[in-house]
Amino acid sequence: MSAAARVLERCDALAQISEEPTRLTRRFGTPAMKEANGLVAGWMREAGLEPREDPLGNLIGRRGDGPVLMLGSHLDTVVDAGRYDGPLGVLVAIEAAARVQRPLEVVGFADEEGCRFGTAYLGSSAMTGRFEPSWRELRDDEGVRLGDLVGEVGPARDDVLGYVEVHIEQGPVLERLGEPVGVVTAINGQSHAEVTFVGEAGHAGTVPIEDRRDALVAAAEWVLAVEAAGGTVGRLEVEPGVRNVIPGRVTATLDLRHPDDATRAATIEELRRRPSRVDLEWRDTGDVPAVAMDERLTAAFGVTTRLPSGAGHDAAMMAHIAPTAMLFVRSRGGSHNPAESVDEADVAVALDALERLLHAV
Amino acid sequence: MSAAARVLERCDALAQISEEPTRLTRRFGTPAMKEANGLVAGWMREAGLEPREDPLGNLIGRRGDGPVLMLGSHLDTVVDAGRYDGPLGVLVAIEAAARVQRPLEVVGFADEEGCRFGTAYLGSSAMTGRFEPSWRELRDDEGVRLGDLVGEVGPARDDVLGYVEVHIEQGPVLERLGEPVGVVTAINGQSHAEVTFVGEAGHAGTVPIEDRRDALVAAAEWVLAVEAAGGTVGRLEVEPGVRNVIPGRVTATLDLRHPDDATRAATIEELRRRPSRVDLEWRDTGDVPAVAMDERLTAAFGVTTRLPSGAGHDAAMMAHIAPTAMLFVRSRGGSHNPAESVDEADVAVALDALERLLHAV
Repeated sequence: MSAAARVLERCDALAQISEEPTRLTRRFGTPAMKEANGLVAGWMREAGLEPREDPLGNLIGRRGDGPVLMLGSHLDTVVDAGRYDGPLGVLVAIEAAARVQRPLEVVGFADEEGCRFGTAYLGSSAMTGRFEPSWRELRDDEGVRLGDLVGEVGPARDDVLGYVEVHIEQGPVLERLGEPVGVVTAINGQSHAEVTFVGEAGHAGTVPIEDRRDALVAAAEWVLAVEAAGGTVGRLEVEPGVRNVIPGRVTATLDLRHPDDATRAATIEELRRRPSRVDLEWRDTGDVPAVAMDERLTAAFGVTTRLPSGAGHDAAMMAHIAPTAMLFVRSRGGSHNPAESVDEADVAVALDALERLLHAV
Repeated sequence: MSAAARVLERCDALAQISEEPTRLTRRFGTPAMKEANGLVAGWMREAGLEPREDPLGNLIGRRGDGPVLMLGSHLDTVVDAGRYDGPLGVLVAIEAAARVQRPLEVVGFADEEGCRFGTAYLGSSAMTGRFEPSWRELRDDEGVRLGDLVGEVGPARDDVLGYVEVHIEQGPVLERLGEPVGVVTAINGQSHAEVTFVGEAGHAGTVPIEDRRDALVAAAEWVLAVEAAGGTVGRLEVEPGVRNVIPGRVTATLDLRHPDDATRAATIEELRRRPSRVDLEWRDTGDVPAVAMDERLTAAFGVTTRLPSGAGHDAAMMAHIAPTAMLFVRSRGGSHNPAESVDEADVAVALDALERLLHAV
């Protein structure tokens, strides 16, 4: 069996370990995560790595002493997940570690998706000294306290020479380009906002167009401006929301992502200037800076296709403590759903690229 | 006291007759409607009219025998209503009848708003032979059957020489023009539809703009096209409605009104042709033809300001059996809310115009 075939077979095996009987759901701190860590720990040993769990539940397999290059991704999933988002990167890393005998660590992060406590990157936050003590008081839907699942979290690791993550692309860019893999240039920065358009409600039959302050018309112009800027309006609510009443109030969300923070800030300024006939209430709900990948480490993959990552990754946290690089693998069926699909040949290309990197740095 | 002042005083008195202690709500078939009919019947007698109630509960005050000109409006209200929408026209008609001694009828329709059974124009439907027997089985929110409130409804009246209605303008046109009154050219036809845009949901961070089929972007373009055509999108719902998910499905309503049916039909055709990147599901939910007012009767008001009516009125029903004319009175504060406001001087102008008409036809 080829190494790539083994990676896919192990993704299948991991997909059987779920909180739910009929679909894949594996959240932080659950017995399913414990069981998955146990299975992956066995594969680490086979590859010559010594596994351990850190106080947060991250699984770390090490070979050698002192500062090391770290490879990995996450082992937790969303609810009703596909089998590749996260695990693929951990299992490719284990295969690469088996091929290249050098000091390194392979990590399987315990919480990237944040589905249980609303805390994305919990695993890599702990490793990079960004774990907030107040998070211990968070509770899940059943009232379980986060702090009761987590041991004493130490300071940021200072022995990581670099972090390298393989992950499925969560969009269609590689598929459209016909490329099996691509290196990530940056993890996009994000602006989130809730924007309210305040106009004036009125009777649809009796108020002439020129006398209106239609909140939905203003919001529609803004939706198109957001799209022209590459952003997304995912939620939009109209009040009062009746067929024969001119909308008086519309609340919409903004999700804008860009690899360059200055460009993103300028776009936000532009979007705040609109519109003319209604009032605008703007509430920032998130601002995540872009994270550039390390050029030298990225070049070591020997892959020419380059693309930014619109989604966040553990790599964005790890970049705070070490040079970081990411490799995307083409995925059909998007991500965060059971239709995720990866070709064995593409996994083989990714594995070769990671092996090249391990020899080169 | 001037006749116009008396009209406003009587509007105040009628506004005290409500189903609710703290606001004006007077729906069809309620004790409040019975009490209002009783009060207005007394004013009819003072004006030399003989009041009666027809089987539907319409209050009709008559002077003379044989075919007559009919004046009037409605005495029912919406929930939390203003005091002028409906009653003003009945009370102006009574004052005009007191001034001009000629055969005529003044009607106070029992249900124009349709708030109780969802049946607008119930009163004038009955008078024009358009009462559907199946409506008897309708029930209100408390389970009361419409048929239990209504006697035997006869055929269309064939003794009405014309119908003339005074009503507050429910929009701001007269106020903007600085005119106290205006004659209605036509009651606009209406097209109602529920339109669904079916695109494809996806991750806001990972699907490039050029690969998207964003249902909200398509809907936004359509909202602007509807506005350019003079129509209204009052309701719009986005699915799944999450900040970081590209909308896959949007459902919106259309309310389009125009005095010319052919123009309205052409506009609908145009709006059905959009958009390009998503699928469109179109469900017609209403088509009401425009109703032209009678030119000769309208001219008899001696009023030069002309405007269409975007809202429906009993006059639209009455036009099926007789030449019909309407006069709008300037109203501040819109309609269907307690802020409705009418100036005594404007009422005097309306009363003079109605008196002119009664002398001229």
